[in-house]
Amino acid sequence: MLKRVYRFKEGNAEMKNLLGGKGANLAEMTALGLPIPPGFTVTTEACQAYYAAGGKMPEGLMQEIHHALRGLEAAKSAEFGGVSRPLLVSVRSGSVTSMPGMMDTILNLGLNDDTVKGLAEQTGNERFAYDCYRRFIQMFGDVVLGIHSIYFERLIEMCRKENGRSCDQEISASEWKELIAKYKSIVEDRTGQPFPQDVHVQLKLAVEAVFRSWNNMRAKVYRKAYGIPDEQGTAVNIQAMVFGNLGTGSGTGVLFTRNPSTGERELYGEYLADAQGEDVVAGVRTPKAVSELFSELPLVYEQLSAAAGLLEIHYRDMQDIEFTVENGSLYLLQTRSGKRTAQASIKIAVDLTKEGILSKEEAVSRIEPGHLDQLLHRSLAIPAELAPIAKGLPASPGAAVGLIALDADTAERWAKDGRKVVLVSTETSPDDIHGILAAEGVLTSRGGMTSHAAVVARGMGKPCVCGCEALSIDHEDRSVRIGELTLAEGEGISLDASGGRVFRGGLSLSDPEITPELLTLLDYADEIRKLRIYANADTPHDAQKAREFGAEGIGLCRTEHMFFSGSRLPIVQSMILAGGREERMFYLDRLLPMQQADFEEMFGAMDGLPVTIRLLDPPLHEFLPNPDQLREQCRKLEETGENGEEARKLKAMISKVNELREVNPMLGLRGVRLGILFPEIYEMQIEAIFKAAQSALRRGVDVRPEIMIPLVGHPDELKRMRALVDDIGGQALSEEFRGLIYRVGTMIEVPRAALLADTIAQHADFFSFGTNDLTQMTFGYSRDDAEGKFLNSYLDGNILKANPFQVLDQDGVGQLIQWAVTRGKAVKSFLKTGICGEHGGDRESISFCHRTGLEYVSCSPYRIPFARIAAAQAALLDKGEKAQSPAEKQVV
Amino acid sequence: MLKRVYRFKEGNAEMKNLLGGKGANLAEMTALGLPIPPGFTVTTEACQAYYAAGGKMPEGLMQEIHHALRGLEAAKSAEFGGVSRPLLVSVRSGSVTSMPGMMDTILNLGLNDDTVKGLAEQTGNERFAYDCYRRFIQMFGDVVLGIHSIYFERLIEMCRKENGRSCDQEISASEWKELIAKYKSIVEDRTGQPFPQDVHVQLKLAVEAVFRSWNNMRAKVYRKAYGIPDEQGTAVNIQAMVFGNLGTGSGTGVLFTRNPSTGERELYGEYLADAQGEDVVAGVRTPKAVSELFSELPLVYEQLSAAAGLLEIHYRDMQDIEFTVENGSLYLLQTRSGKRTAQASIKIAVDLTKEGILSKEEAVSRIEPGHLDQLLHRSLAIPAELAPIAKGLPASPGAAVGLIALDADTAERWAKDGRKVVLVSTETSPDDIHGILAAEGVLTSRGGMTSHAAVVARGMGKPCVCGCEALSIDHEDRSVRIGELTLAEGEGISLDASGGRVFRGGLSLSDPEITPELLTLLDYADEIRKLRIYANADTPHDAQKAREFGAEGIGLCRTEHMFFSGSRLPIVQSMILAGGREERMFYLDRLLPMQQADFEEMFGAMDGLPVTIRLLDPPLHEFLPNPDQLREQCRKLEETGENGEEARKLKAMISKVNELREVNPMLGLRGVRLGILFPEIYEMQIEAIFKAAQSALRRGVDVRPEIMIPLVGHPDELKRMRALVDDIGGQALSEEFRGLIYRVGTMIEVPRAALLADTIAQHADFFSFGTNDLTQMTFGYSRDDAEGKFLNSYLDGNILKANPFQVLDQDGVGQLIQWAVTRGKAVKSFLKTGICGEHGGDRESISFCHRTGLEYVSCSPYRIPFARIAAAQAALLDKGEKAQSPAEKQVV
Repeated sequence: MLKRVYRFKEGNAEMKNLLGGKGANLAEMTALGLPIPPGFTVTTEACQAYYAAGGKMPEGLMQEIHHALRGLEAAKSAEFGGVSRPLLVSVRSGSVTSMPGMMDTILNLGLNDDTVKGLAEQTGNERFAYDCYRRFIQMFGDVVLGIHSIYFERLIEMCRKENGRSCDQEISASEWKELIAKYKSIVEDRTGQPFPQDVHVQLKLAVEAVFRSWNNMRAKVYRKAYGIPDEQGTAVNIQAMVFGNLGTGSGTGVLFTRNPSTGERELYGEYLADAQGEDVVAGVRTPKAVSELFSELPLVYEQLSAAAGLLEIHYRDMQDIEFTVENGSLYLLQTRSGKRTAQASIKIAVDLTKEGILSKEEAVSRIEPGHLDQLLHRSLAIPAELAPIAKGLPASPGAAVGLIALDADTAERWAKDGRKVVLVSTETSPDDIHGILAAEGVLTSRGGMTSHAAVVARGMGKPCVCGCEALSIDHEDRSVRIGELTLAEGEGISLDASGGRVFRGGLSLSDPEITPELLTLLDYADEIRKLRIYANADTPHDAQKAREFGAEGIGLCRTEHMFFSGSRLPIVQSMILAGGREERMFYLDRLLPMQQADFEEMFGAMDGLPVTIRLLDPPLHEFLPNPDQLREQCRKLEETGENGEEARKLKAMISKVNELREVNPMLGLRGVRLGILFPEIYEMQIEAIFKAAQSALRRGVDVRPEIMIPLVGHPDELKRMRALVDDIGGQALSEEFRGLIYRVGTMIEVPRAALLADTIAQHADFFSFGTNDLTQMTFGYSRDDAEGKFLNSYLDGNILKANPFQVLDQDGVGQLIQWAVTRGKAVKSFLKTGICGEHGGDRESISFCHRTGLEYVSCSPYRIPFARIAAAQAALLDKGEKAQSPAEKQVV
Repeated sequence: MLKRVYRFKEGNAEMKNLLGGKGANLAEMTALGLPIPPGFTVTTEACQAYYAAGGKMPEGLMQEIHHALRGLEAAKSAEFGGVSRPLLVSVRSGSVTSMPGMMDTILNLGLNDDTVKGLAEQTGNERFAYDCYRRFIQMFGDVVLGIHSIYFERLIEMCRKENGRSCDQEISASEWKELIAKYKSIVEDRTGQPFPQDVHVQLKLAVEAVFRSWNNMRAKVYRKAYGIPDEQGTAVNIQAMVFGNLGTGSGTGVLFTRNPSTGERELYGEYLADAQGEDVVAGVRTPKAVSELFSELPLVYEQLSAAAGLLEIHYRDMQDIEFTVENGSLYLLQTRSGKRTAQASIKIAVDLTKEGILSKEEAVSRIEPGHLDQLLHRSLAIPAELAPIAKGLPASPGAAVGLIALDADTAERWAKDGRKVVLVSTETSPDDIHGILAAEGVLTSRGGMTSHAAVVARGMGKPCVCGCEALSIDHEDRSVRIGELTLAEGEGISLDASGGRVFRGGLSLSDPEITPELLTLLDYADEIRKLRIYANADTPHDAQKAREFGAEGIGLCRTEHMFFSGSRLPIVQSMILAGGREERMFYLDRLLPMQQADFEEMFGAMDGLPVTIRLLDPPLHEFLPNPDQLREQCRKLEETGENGEEARKLKAMISKVNELREVNPMLGLRGVRLGILFPEIYEMQIEAIFKAAQSALRRGVDVRPEIMIPLVGHPDELKRMRALVDDIGGQALSEEFRGLIYRVGTMIEVPRAALLADTIAQHADFFSFGTNDLTQMTFGYSRDDAEGKFLNSYLDGNILKANPFQVLDQDGVGQLIQWAVTRGKAVKSFLKTGICGEHGGDRESISFCHRTGLEYVSCSPYRIPFARIAAAQAALLDKGEKAQSPAEKQVV
C-alpha cells in the first residue's frame, strides 16, 4: 500500500511535490539534526485520494495518522487526549507552491474539557491553559466548522465589558472558563452538534478541513491566476506544540545570524523568558539581547550558536530564526533569509564569500543594485513625522541642504561667502551654469527629466528636483510660494532629490560611504561581467570621478556643455549671430583653443582609455537667451534711451532667435544636420580634438579618441562627416603622430539609422545607441511633454509597465537595437556597439544590452558602481544562474 | 572569314550587339521598306579586332568596305571620288549603348579639290558646294586629325571681317574658296601632311578615328560610370549623303504623325523647299505646313503619309520624323517618339488602343501620371516674358486669380459681393476657415507643407502657396510688400500654386478638362490595377467630388476638420476650456448632433462604399487662438476698461493655451493619447458615428463605417479604444441595426506601432499607414522645420534623392511598412492595409504600396485619377511590363 504519512525524519527538501513546501523544509531541518518539534506530514497524494473518492477520507489514512501520532507521544513523553501530560499538536496546510487563501493553522489541537485541566496542572498556569482552550475552540470553530470569528469575538467583547477588563490579558482563568461554556453553546447552536471532545475526531475533522481548503474559492482563483494545476492537492503537517511559557527555563526569541544593520558577524536578536511568541510581539515586557542567554542558559546559547552556523552554511545566507525554549530544551520553529540594510547586504555577501560559503558569482547575484544608490549618494535624515512641502521629478539623485537662492548670481555670491545654497528657479538656462556649479542642489518649478537643469545637474552629479509645479517664485518679493506657504530667499530648504521631495528647513545629511567590502564586491563583479562600463562625462573633473568609480572609458562627452560655460557663451552666441561663414569662422577660431584645452585635459584624465567625443548636437537657439527675456531687456533699454548699441545687438539677437525658433525642436536642425549645413563648426571641433590628441601624445599620454557624429539618419551623412574627420586629421597631425589610432562612429538615435544599420556600418567604427532620442522617436513621445502631460496616466492606467525613458522598451526600441546590432555586425564583425542614453544606468536595460551582445554601456559617473554590478548580474543571469534576491528565499 | 560589314538591308533591330544601336535601327527601317539613304555598318567585332591587333586596321577590312561602297555607288548612280556625280557619305560611330563622348559625325566625306567642282556643277550652287567642302575639312580636321576647331573658326572670323560679312550665309563662293586654301595650309602646318585628297584615304582615316574614339578619355569615364564593358567596341555607320537643296523638287522637313498638341490624327509638321535641315532651324525662311506638300509634291506626300502610318504601327507610338526630299525622292533620316502635351498623350494612347495598335495595358503604361496634374487643375496662361514677383511652397496645386484680401472677413465680404479674391495672410488659423472657403486661393508668408493653410487648402482642393517668405503684410497700411514692390489690398494677384509662383495682376485661367479619352483611359487603368483607390475627404462635398473622380471609399475622414468650422469652433473651445469632465460633457453633447449630421451626409455620399473615420487627432491647443493674438486682444479690452466678462474669458483662454503649450507638439498629447486621457471626447465621436449610421440605414443607405484610432504605439491603446467602440456601438444601435458591420482599425504612424504590428493586429481590422507622421518620426524630421531649414540643403547636396514627404522613403520608412504588413498579416490574414499619407498621391510610392501588397491607397480627391493610373502602372511594372515613358524611346 502507498505510504501516505511521512515523519519529519523520513523526508527532505527534495520531496516538495509529495510533502508540500513546508513539510519538506521541516523534514530538511530535522535531517540537519536541528531541534525541530517532532511531527509528520500527510502527503499531497492523500489529498488527491480524498478528492478521487468524492471528498471522503481514504480508507486506512486515519490509522496511519494514529500510528504516526504514537511516535509523537513517545518523543514528547505525552499522550494525545491524555489528562496528565496531554499531547497538543498544530495542524497546518502545506501545498507545493505557497498559496494564500488556504487554511493556515490550528494550534493547540488535542484540548478538551479534560486535557485542559492536565495542561493547567502541567504548566501551573490555569489562565494560560484556558486561554489556549478558548483559542482552540475559536480557531477550530472558524476554519473547521465554518463559524465566523465574529460570533466568538462578540462574546469576548461582552466578557471584557461585564468584568471591566480593558484587554484580553486581564481576563482571568474563571472568566475564560465562563466564556468557553458560551463558545461551546455557539458551536452546538450553529452546527447542531456539541464541540467534539474526542481528540481523534478533532484531528480527523482538521485534516479534512485542510483537504477541503484546497478547493475553496480564493484558492481556486489563485491557482487559475498563477497556473497551478488543480489536481496537485495539499499536504497536511501535524506537529507537536512546544511552549516557551512553562517557567524560568522556558522562553522565546528571534535570532539573526549576523547583525542586519551593519553586517558584522555576531549573534544578534532578542529573547523573552517565560513567554510565548505573541508576548514578544505584544511588547508587554522588554526583551533581552540574545547574548544574555550566554550567562542565563549557556547550553541553549551554545546550541543556538551552533544552529545559526549550521543554518547559514546550509542555506548559504544570513538567517532570521524563530526559536522557543521549553524547559531548557531549544526548539527552532522557523528560519528564513534575514532582511538587512544596503550596507549589511554588501558586507555579508563579501564575508560569506571570504568564508568560503558563497562563490563570487553568488555574492554578486545577491546584491540588489538599487541598494548602491543609497550608498553612493548623500541622503537626508528625515524625521518620521516630517512631510515634504512639495514634490517634483527626481531629476538627479542625492540630497542637498542649503539656503534658498533665487538666481544664479546670488547663489554664486553666497557660495563664495561660504554659505551652502540651493538654487531655486522657474527653469534654468545656459546663463545659470555658474549658479548651478555654486549650489548644493537645484530645484525648478518647470521642465522635465531632460530639461536644462536636469541634464546639467545629472552631468555634474548634483542633486536636482525638477518640474515641481506647486512652486511659484515671486522675484519682486524675493520669495517662493508653495500653496499657502511662503519661504523667503535665504531660508533653509532640503532636497531629497532621489525621491523628488522638498522639505522645509535644513535637515542633516549623511555622507555616502564606499566601504572596503563594496570595493571587493565590485572586483568580483568585474571578474564576471562581459560588458564594459563607460561614463558619460563632459568635463575633466567628471572624467576623473568616473575613473575613480571604475569607468573603462568615456562613452559620451557632450561638447556642447563645454560651449555653455560662462566665459565661452558670449563667443558661442557671437558665432551663431554671425552674418556669414567668414564671420562665423572668426569666432570659431577663438573657440578652438578652448575646446582643445578641454579635450587635452580629458585625454589626460583617461590616459590609456577611449574617450568618445560627440560633436555639437543641440539646436543653435539653445545657446541664445529666451526671447521673452530679451524683449523685456530691450524694452527697458529703449525706455531709458541709453545704450543704443546694446539695444541694436539685442534686437539682432531677438531676430536670430525668432529665425532659429522651431515648431518641434526635437525633430529640427540639430546634430549632424548642423554639421552638414555649417561644416565649419564641426571642422573646428575636429581640429581641436586632433590638436589636443597631439599635445597629449607629446606629453606621453596614451590617447584614444573616438569621434561620434550625432543624429545620423542617412548613410551619406556619416560618410561625409567621416571624410571630414579623416581630412582634418591628416592636416592637423604632424608627421610623427600620423599613426594615431582614432575611431569614427555614430549615434544610432533616429529610427531610420537603426533600419539602415547595414549601410551606415560601412562608414562606422562604432555605434552608440542614443536611447533617449531613440525612445522619443520610436514612441513619438517628446519627453518634455509626455512626462508632464500623459505618461503618468499611461503608467497609472497600466498601459505602460514602466517609464520608457527610465527602463528601456525592449518590445519596441529594443527590436530596433537588436536589428541594428545584427545588421551592423553582419557588415563589420568588429563594429563596436554600446549605449549612452540614461538607460545605461538601469538594471533591466543593462541586462538587455548584455543579451543583445553590445560591448559597453555608458552612464553617469555616479552610476558606474551600480552598472558594474548590474552588468555582472546580467552575465550570471545569462548563464542560467538566476540572480535571486534574498527576500524571495523563505523557509518553513 | 568573319563578315565585318553589313549593308543596311542585311540587318535588323535585333542585331544591336553586332551593329550598334544606330546601325541596327537604320537596318530595321530599311527592312520596313522605308526610303532610307543607302548605307552599311562596320561591326563592333571589327572594332574589337582593331584593338586586338594593337590599334591596326584588321586585314581585309578596307576591302570589305570598298566592296560595300560599290553597292552605294550603284544605288545612288554615283561614284565615290568621281567628278561628275561624286558620291558623298556620312561616317558615324554607333555603340551598342548610346554613349556621349565618342566621335559623332563626319558629313560630306568624299569631297576633294576635284569632286567639289562636280558637286557645284551637279547642284548648280557653287557657294553651297564650297561651303560643304570647308565644313568637311573642318570636321575632318577636328575629329580625325585632332586639330582644334578654334583654328578654323578664327579664320572664318577674319574672313568675315575682311569681306565685311555679318554672317556666314553672306560669304560668297569665292571667299569660301580662299578660306579652303587657308584651311588646307593649317592642316599641313599642324600634321606635316597635306589634307588627304584621296577619298579612300579619307574614309580609312575616318573609320580608324571612330574606332579610336571608343577609347578616348570621356568615353572611358562614361563606361566606367555606367558599367559598360570596355571590350564591347563600337560599330561605324557609313551612309550616302542626300541633299534637300538641289532645286524645287528638293526640300527638308519635320513631320509628326499626329497633332502633338491636341492628339488629333492628322499629319502635322513643317516643310521648307530647296533647303537643308539646318536652314529650317536657322529660320531664314518661313516653312510651310506639311499638308501643302499634298498639292506641291503629291507623290512625296503620299509616300510620307504611308511612311507615317507604317512607323506608327511599327514603333507603336506617335512619331516625330525628319525627312529630306532630294529631286523628288523622299528620304527618312530619323524617327523617334514625338513629344506631346498632356492632353495629346492621353488622346493618342486611347486612339492607338482603339485602332488596335496598343493593348490597354500599353496605353496605360504610356501615360506620365504627372501629366494628369496639368489636366485636372486650372492653370495660368503666363506670358513668356512675365517673371513671378515671389516664390513659395506649392502647397496645394492649381491656379487662382483674384483681388488681394488681407483677412478672412474681407475675403468673405468681397466674395459675397461677387468678386474673386485671393486670401493673403501671414499664416491662417481655424478662425480663418470662412475666408479660405470664400477665396479662390490662399497665399501665406509663413508655414510649410503641413501648415494649417496648406492642409485645409489641399483638403478643399483650393490652390495654395505657403511660406512665401519674401512677402510681408502691413495691416496698418492694408498692403503687401515684396522687396521694393508694394501691392495694396484689392489689387489683382495670380497664383500658379502648382509651381509655387506668385504673379502680379490678374492673368487668365484655363479650365481643367476631363476629356472622354481620359475617362476611357481611366477605365483601362481600373481593369488593370490591384490597389483600390480611396480618398482623403473631410466633408460631404469632398466625398461627392471623390466619388466623381472614381474613389472606391474614404480612406481618411479627419473629424477635427469638422471641429474647425465657424459655428462649431466656439463650442469646441468651450469644451477644451471646461473645468472638468462634466462641463466638458455638456459641450460634447452639443457637438454630437453636429458630428452626427456630418457623418450621415458622408455615409449618404458614399453609399455602398467604406468610410474610414479617424477620431480626433491634433493637440487641443490647435483649436485655440494664437496666444500673442489673445494677449493683444486682452490688452486692448483692458485699456478700454469695458467688457470685464470678455476679458476674464480671454485670460482663461490664455492660461489654457499656455497650459496646453508643448515643446514638441508633434510628439505630444494628441491622437489616441487624447482618447485615453479624455475618453468622453472619443465616446461622443463614436456615438455620433453609430447614430449617423443608424439614421442612414433607416433611409436605405448601405453604410460601411470604419473607425480609425490615430497614433497608436502600444497594443493596449487600441485594445481599450476598440472595447470603447464595441461598447458604445452596442448601446447606440437599436436592436434591428445591431447587425451593422463595421471595422475598427488604427493608423500605423509611430515607428513603435510598425515594430509591434503583430500584437496590434490582434485588435485591428485594418492598418492605415500614416506615412506623413511615420516619415517624420522615422527620420526625426519635423516637416514644418525641415522644409524651411535643412531639407533643401540635403536635396541640393544630394544626400536625399527626393523629399521624403513627397516620395516615400522606401529604404527606411518602407522597411517599417513592409515589416508591419508582413507581421500583421501573419497574425490576421484578412487584415486590410493601406496608406493615407500624402504619399498616396505619389507615383513611386503607389508602386511601392502595390509591391508591398497593400489593399488600398488613399489620396486627395483631385489626385484620384492620377492614383488610378499610377496603380495600374504599378501592376504592369510588377508583371514585368516595364512602363516606359515615351520620351525614353528614341530611334536612330
